Amino acid sequence: MPVKSPSCRQTVRFDSNKEFSDELAGTVEKLLRQRARLSSFEHVSQVPKPSFRKAKELITLAQQLFFPGFFSPKPVTEVNVGYHIGQVLDSFYDLLSREVATSIRHDCRKYDYDCSDCQERGRRIAMEVVQRLPDLRDILASDVTAALEGDPAAGDHYDQIIFCYPGLFATMVQRLAHELYALEVPFLPRILTEYAHSKTGVDIHPGAQIGPKFFMDHGTGVVMGETTIIGSGVRIYQGVTLGALSIPRDAGAKLQGKKRHPTLEDGVIVYAGATILGGETVIGANSVVGGNVWLTESIPPNTKILIKTPELIVINGKKPAGKKK
Amino acid sequence: MPVKSPSCRQTVRFDSNKEFSDELAGTVEKLLRQRARLSSFEHVSQVPKPSFRKAKELITLAQQLFFPGFFSPKPVTEVNVGYHIGQVLDSFYDLLSREVATSIRHDCRKYDYDCSDCQERGRRIAMEVVQRLPDLRDILASDVTAALEGDPAAGDHYDQIIFCYPGLFATMVQRLAHELYALEVPFLPRILTEYAHSKTGVDIHPGAQIGPKFFMDHGTGVVMGETTIIGSGVRIYQGVTLGALSIPRDAGAKLQGKKRHPTLEDGVIVYAGATILGGETVIGANSVVGGNVWLTESIPPNTKILIKTPELIVINGKKPAGKKK
Amino acid sequence: MPVKSPSCRQTVRFDSNKEFSDELAGTVEKLLRQRARLSSFEHVSQVPKPSFRKAKELITLAQQLFFPGFFSPKPVTEVNVGYHIGQVLDSFYDLLSREVATSIRHDCRKYDYDCSDCQERGRRIAMEVVQRLPDLRDILASDVTAALEGDPAAGDHYDQIIFCYPGLFATMVQRLAHELYALEVPFLPRILTEYAHSKTGVDIHPGAQIGPKFFMDHGTGVVMGETTIIGSGVRIYQGVTLGALSIPRDAGAKLQGKKRHPTLEDGVIVYAGATILGGETVIGANSVVGGNVWLTESIPPNTKILIKTPELIVINGKKPAGKKK
Amino acid sequence: MPVKSPSCRQTVRFDSNKEFSDELAGTVEKLLRQRARLSSFEHVSQVPKPSFRKAKELITLAQQLFFPGFFSPKPVTEVNVGYHIGQVLDSFYDLLSREVATSIRHDCRKYDYDCSDCQERGRRIAMEVVQRLPDLRDILASDVTAALEGDPAAGDHYDQIIFCYPGLFATMVQRLAHELYALEVPFLPRILTEYAHSKTGVDIHPGAQIGPKFFMDHGTGVVMGETTIIGSGVRIYQGVTLGALSIPRDAGAKLQGKKRHPTLEDGVIVYAGATILGGETVIGANSVVGGNVWLTESIPPNTKILIKTPELIVINGKKPAGKKK
Amino acid sequence: MPVKSPSCRQTVRFDSNKEFSDELAGTVEKLLRQRARLSSFEHVSQVPKPSFRKAKELITLAQQLFFPGFFSPKPVTEVNVGYHIGQVLDSFYDLLSREVATSIRHDCRKYDYDCSDCQERGRRIAMEVVQRLPDLRDILASDVTAALEGDPAAGDHYDQIIFCYPGLFATMVQRLAHELYALEVPFLPRILTEYAHSKTGVDIHPGAQIGPKFFMDHGTGVVMGETTIIGSGVRIYQGVTLGALSIPRDAGAKLQGKKRHPTLEDGVIVYAGATILGGETVIGANSVVGGNVWLTESIPPNTKILIKTPELIVINGKKPAGKKK
Amino acid sequence: MPVKSPSCRQTVRFDSNKEFSDELAGTVEKLLRQRARLSSFEHVSQVPKPSFRKAKELITLAQQLFFPGFFSPKPVTEVNVGYHIGQVLDSFYDLLSREVATSIRHDCRKYDYDCSDCQERGRRIAMEVVQRLPDLRDILASDVTAALEGDPAAGDHYDQIIFCYPGLFATMVQRLAHELYALEVPFLPRILTEYAHSKTGVDIHPGAQIGPKFFMDHGTGVVMGETTIIGSGVRIYQGVTLGALSIPRDAGAKLQGKKRHPTLEDGVIVYAGATILGGETVIGANSVVGGNVWLTESIPPNTKILIKTPELIVINGKKPAGKKK
Repeated sequence: MPVKSPSCRQTVRFDSNKEFSDELAGTVEKLLRQRARLSSFEHVSQVPKPSFRKAKELITLAQQLFFPGFFSPKPVTEVNVGYHIGQVLDSFYDLLSREVATSIRHDCRKYDYDCSDCQERGRRIAMEVVQRLPDLRDILASDVTAALEGDPAAGDHYDQIIFCYPGLFATMVQRLAHELYALEVPFLPRILTEYAHSKTGVDIHPGAQIGPKFFMDHGTGVVMGETTIIGSGVRIYQGVTLGALSIPRDAGAKLQGKKRHPTLEDGVIVYAGATILGGETVIGANSVVGGNVWLTESIPPNTKILIKTPELIVINGKKPAGKKK
Repeated sequence: MPVKSPSCRQTVRFDSNKEFSDELAGTVEKLLRQRARLSSFEHVSQVPKPSFRKAKELITLAQQLFFPGFFSPKPVTEVNVGYHIGQVLDSFYDLLSREVATSIRHDCRKYDYDCSDCQERGRRIAMEVVQRLPDLRDILASDVTAALEGDPAAGDHYDQIIFCYPGLFATMVQRLAHELYALEVPFLPRILTEYAHSKTGVDIHPGAQIGPKFFMDHGTGVVMGETTIIGSGVRIYQGVTLGALSIPRDAGAKLQGKKRHPTLEDGVIVYAGATILGGETVIGANSVVGGNVWLTESIPPNTKILIKTPELIVINGKKPAGKKK
Repeated sequence: MPVKSPSCRQTVRFDSNKEFSDELAGTVEKLLRQRARLSSFEHVSQVPKPSFRKAKELITLAQQLFFPGFFSPKPVTEVNVGYHIGQVLDSFYDLLSREVATSIRHDCRKYDYDCSDCQERGRRIAMEVVQRLPDLRDILASDVTAALEGDPAAGDHYDQIIFCYPGLFATMVQRLAHELYALEVPFLPRILTEYAHSKTGVDIHPGAQIGPKFFMDHGTGVVMGETTIIGSGVRIYQGVTLGALSIPRDAGAKLQGKKRHPTLEDGVIVYAGATILGGETVIGANSVVGGNVWLTESIPPNTKILIKTPELIVINGKKPAGKKK
Repeated sequence: MPVKSPSCRQTVRFDSNKEFSDELAGTVEKLLRQRARLSSFEHVSQVPKPSFRKAKELITLAQQLFFPGFFSPKPVTEVNVGYHIGQVLDSFYDLLSREVATSIRHDCRKYDYDCSDCQERGRRIAMEVVQRLPDLRDILASDVTAALEGDPAAGDHYDQIIFCYPGLFATMVQRLAHELYALEVPFLPRILTEYAHSKTGVDIHPGAQIGPKFFMDHGTGVVMGETTIIGSGVRIYQGVTLGALSIPRDAGAKLQGKKRHPTLEDGVIVYAGATILGGETVIGANSVVGGNVWLTESIPPNTKILIKTPELIVINGKKPAGKKK
Repeated sequence: MPVKSPSCRQTVRFDSNKEFSDELAGTVEKLLRQRARLSSFEHVSQVPKPSFRKAKELITLAQQLFFPGFFSPKPVTEVNVGYHIGQVLDSFYDLLSREVATSIRHDCRKYDYDCSDCQERGRRIAMEVVQRLPDLRDILASDVTAALEGDPAAGDHYDQIIFCYPGLFATMVQRLAHELYALEVPFLPRILTEYAHSKTGVDIHPGAQIGPKFFMDHGTGVVMGETTIIGSGVRIYQGVTLGALSIPRDAGAKLQGKKRHPTLEDGVIVYAGATILGGETVIGANSVVGGNVWLTESIPPNTKILIKTPELIVINGKKPAGKKK
Repeated sequence: MPVKSPSCRQTVRFDSNKEFSDELAGTVEKLLRQRARLSSFEHVSQVPKPSFRKAKELITLAQQLFFPGFFSPKPVTEVNVGYHIGQVLDSFYDLLSREVATSIRHDCRKYDYDCSDCQERGRRIAMEVVQRLPDLRDILASDVTAALEGDPAAGDHYDQIIFCYPGLFATMVQRLAHELYALEVPFLPRILTEYAHSKTGVDIHPGAQIGPKFFMDHGTGVVMGETTIIGSGVRIYQGVTLGALSIPRDAGAKLQGKKRHPTLEDGVIVYAGATILGGETVIGANSVVGGNVWLTESIPPNTKILIKTPELIVINGKKPAGKKK
């Protein structure tokens, strides 16, 4: 049926050639030979690894428990709310126990530990987290209220805060991750907070301890280190760093486990772009740290500390009138 | 057929136990009892809620109308372009009218208002937005041109800007959200801009008014408040904040509705990391605000204002040669 | 069967009306008429365009080659690792050759060039990248090691770094994009780096040259320009800008192709929020640039340069005790 | 960057041509003009239509209620079974009430009836079906038991029957569809049975009345008409037709609503390929109809009726030895 | 952190063993060595192959053109029907031209033909089919009307027939496949009809010629051979075979291309289970072939031919009363 | 913002009512109470169950091994065929070993057996099947060749047979299922053949033994029982039953394990609609069984046995001319 003609051959692909095949096979060989040298950088094992997809599922289930109806794919009604909460909690428990077990087993494999009872430990830890959920829900409700009080653009829109605010999302994920961190679950807490980091630009280490009524506005660029401690009713704006004072070249080995990040007491406000560093730095209760302030030492309670606006150079025009600072 | 052996029982799961079942049921009960106290933090209702998934669909449809062919899953050709635009506009109108109606109804439910005509209002508002689209498209074309003129790395790559630049994406979404904000649609505008925030790290409130030929490079960390006003041909770099002068603890209630964020007149450039605060702060036309500058007062037109580089401490080496500033 | 009743008509939709239909059709007409004027802003053609979805696939395949087993949907074991690497490399080559060809053809179409051999060139370039992969893998392994050494929170968790750290992800994508950039592939490199930008908040131009043992912590807000050069063992924190000294209004045309961004020699550390600008600015080997430092000129090797903390204004409390800097 | 060469133009596609565009547009016009003439064959309306996808969802939900744990995507355990049943029943009710309302509204539209309360009627009818579910479940359990008793290959594999037997599936769907048929729901019952027909090759009209303990083996090719009545404990094999006696050319108008299909009393067995026709044909209790039998009249109870094997023509060999029938 | 214990090793998988690895690799080798011998049974080539998924897409697009609104995922309204038809027709043309080209190229490859212009021929053939669509739509409308007239259970439910009847679906697909068959497209027509066969149990060869007003009730088990010819207004029931008279052991080579299947003139009805064989067998106009009739020779027009019900053997009861035939 | 109006309340849903909620909860209670009585009809357990989705995956993987390149989502080329076969075989082994283990464990649970080593047995059995694959592939190749020889419509289209013929698909699945059946794997073999039954209308029990060069044309309605034995080079047409002679009411218990279905020796052809019953019925080598023949006893080799066409009743016309049989 097809008419004979000379041009069809033009579509024959180069990569059918012997030459190409050899080159590809050569690179495969190189990559396989590298394995001996780069064995720390691969995960070649039947042992499964935790995954971002599962972490995301966990977070969505937690959201459905913390804020019933907002994050469920189907309507939650007075009629089904009991069944719904039961079903979601069971799924949350089940998935969490498996992910915790996976994380522990993964860790054992890596360190060549003999371990046992991964599944059993997964279930026990998951149940401890489950029992913490009602308290976490109260704390998250206090966070929402704090956002309402702190954001002129929020109006009385509880829903908008719960549904849209990246600061609340990052806080919620960190609070959950922190429970796992406190129970010494490896790997999984960091996956949770990195998922939130990727979605919001807010990077809070699972180790950070954050009190209730926490409000973080805008959020992008916020970084909080592992040993940060934050009291109740603290408010933080975009681009704030709560970091380590200095990080030597061999920081990894030396500083692990030490308190390296600051403490913010109750009621502190830190405006955008401020940097607070050091494990012994304490911002006293109800103090205010102005935008772009750079702090490496403690300040007492009830203090307002502002950057002295750096002198400006004005070219091709007059200095802004009435400039006083 | 299966050989009898004693070990299979080992896989019986803990959670089949009566004890476990009681614990889970207990937590379910706690979560349900919390509802009385936390009723503001749930959405238990048959009334549907707006969704990020739908918001994303809306944005994709808008992209297909603003930049035909770039964001369509199938090739758009001279042959089908007419059908395509028609089909997409119809889908956009349909989806928007439903999402607007959902947002209004959601709001009514919350405030316990009696409302009517949610669907009718949804359609009317969606049609107003539809009729604005050709103008928005012209403005977005001016934004693309501004990017071409402002970015040495852009070459003459219209396509790269349209397809890749997060600044353009965030601007596009905000311009769309602003139309809905101006028509007093609740909730939905914020969902749109938060979607863009999550994707780009650029957080512009739907209320901000932005003139044509707007170019935002890199973008990550940019924050613009609700009452910001931006003229024509303005250019902004990463990490810039156009914010409120100060935010008291009870800001939510007090400041709602006031002009709290600055005004940038035509042709202003604001370099990376600059912070401009206050509702009465006006940056005069064609002025330039240098990187990291902190401004809380107005500057006249045609002014170039730079940070006086803070004195540097040089350790273990000599001060950079030729340092003059 | 249905009982007759008067109320069903209420659900008849407005948009069936003639009036509505005309309005929608009118907007379609306007959008089609705009095409003549806005032809640079559309992609109406049978020629396919590169896509973010394909770029994401490419990156996932590359991850599976660089860190075998970590990013594969199925377990990679000693039994299947050889088949797996072969299969993934073949897929990577195949997809890359098609995306490169698409990018070239897209470019030709745009400039109205006569070009040939898009597919052939796609294959040749893809093979060059394939042959570079083992070297890239070595370099990425050095990056992971650098992270381990530099981050006190990392412990000895290779896995956590490979799996979770956004800085490593952004670096990996940029290294891949840079290979394509160096081979003069249009469009695609930028799509790759913008995908990473969207996911991590780290915006590194494909043109930047980055040495081995590179570690970027937290990452959000980092911007590196096209002509940046970075040595071996450099460490960078969040919010750092390596940018151009100044960007005139008509920068796009004037500065294209010139070295506009700084050079960081081996072993440099740049702390959070620092800004280093200018194509002739060189940070000497093993120097340290402190947080928030603003640099527009070179500094010699082995220098530590810190911001002199700006004076602070303390209100309603006492100045922090022991303030020395 | 791309080298100029003459051959790229070869990929320009024919369909960009004016000629092609005109031809396609011409066919579009023809298809649109046909609408006036073919208006009965289109569904151009905002009113939604029932869908096979939703029908499939309904069936899956029903399966989860009838045979808990077999058809649920997640494990059903003693711990979650209560939540699970509640959640699934709520989803079933909700989806069914919407699909019934859709079917009624669709019907109204078609006949140009004024109807009201589509949603209200949908809910009322769905609730009636919900209340029938426990009884249906008992009947389906009797069907499974009947299969166990009737199939030598089934062993004691309840699970295999519930999970795999197409006869049970078709029966289950028909029983559900029959409830809707009895409540005079238009359209939807037929969609349900056609879904089962497509999956199993068993075509039972929703109108057929089938008693408990029904077992249909293999099933492919079974056809049962609208007015078929089947007693308790009946067993049917593949390729059986329970049909109308004769179907005149204008059957559609004449015979609608009359009893046109046979009645099978309790305990009847009908072997493969048998055909039983006519509304007045009654197969008496416990009778057996042999394979390939063609029956158009009643037979009394306790009768075994076999086809007299038609004489065979034997060529090129001897007639089967011992042939007696 | 993990407690050391002896039992974890138990989960080490057998398949990590050397032994297992060797066995798997051995089978891979065997499978690869078989290739030399079994080269006709593989499709190892860059040349793509047609697919069932694409065939299904084609059919869905065709359904949207033949019965606007019934099979579209979104509502088709008076407002968008023009855009919709245009868009769908363009997609249909585009997909069909690609699938035709793929089928031709696949064929060339197989026979080692030199061919050219696969894409060009694909487009030309697809356009011919496009231009036939309005006529096919008229014919399909006549099929729907025939179903209404012929099925007492259909009522006046055009919608039910269009949406649910497998006979109409199989007819529609065959009519489309026949157009491609007539244009000598290889492979694709058979994929289309096998898709319909799989869904409906109706197996009509793409070569069969079927007149308008065709109605096939129930359908399961219908088989019609390649050279069948069917007039106008024919009606066929389940399990009917229109086949070849006899099929010798080497039928494949001998009979290809000859008329091997019967002809049914206008207005013929064939009841369930009838078998009509032979290329010279002609059923005269308006004749009726009764259920289970076995015909290998022609019958004149206006004849009604019934099976003489084979004598029945009645055991354990009395012969049905009033048996006359 | 929303205008107050009285009509919105109309959309409040009935199902928020107390009354409705009680009714739904009541049905949930009934369904839960039924559990005590219907415990054989549920699968409430943490133990997973085999699934049709996994069975389908297994079949697709097997197809990729039997007919390389035809069923792979990506092109298989000379370059990647080795990696591809290795990867697919590993996946096949892995999935099969898990599904076998699941089937065994499921069975244990049901019978309350103590079993051990489910996983170990799964792996051992899967490896035995893997080692059988090259032989199965040879046999399937012989089936394809037989189809080519037997079907005049097949031409020399190996590809069409492999890709489209439902008879080959059903045969392939049964051959695979039979291997598992022979290794006494519970449940899974039946899931495999029922999947093929659903797709093709061909119902072959996994227990049937089928020789090479088997060709089944059209297939719909074919049924073959568990103890059927089929020689080499057998050909079967649609609607053929190879069944049990008679099936008493309590057949399930009595007949299990006995040879109940016929034997077809080498080279037998059975035409459409023929029925062959009984465990002692043997069709001698190279015999031909005509269409619709009903056989319950053996026939010797080389015999052609045809139905004596039943006398026909001719009404309203003349008897077909030249009628001889």
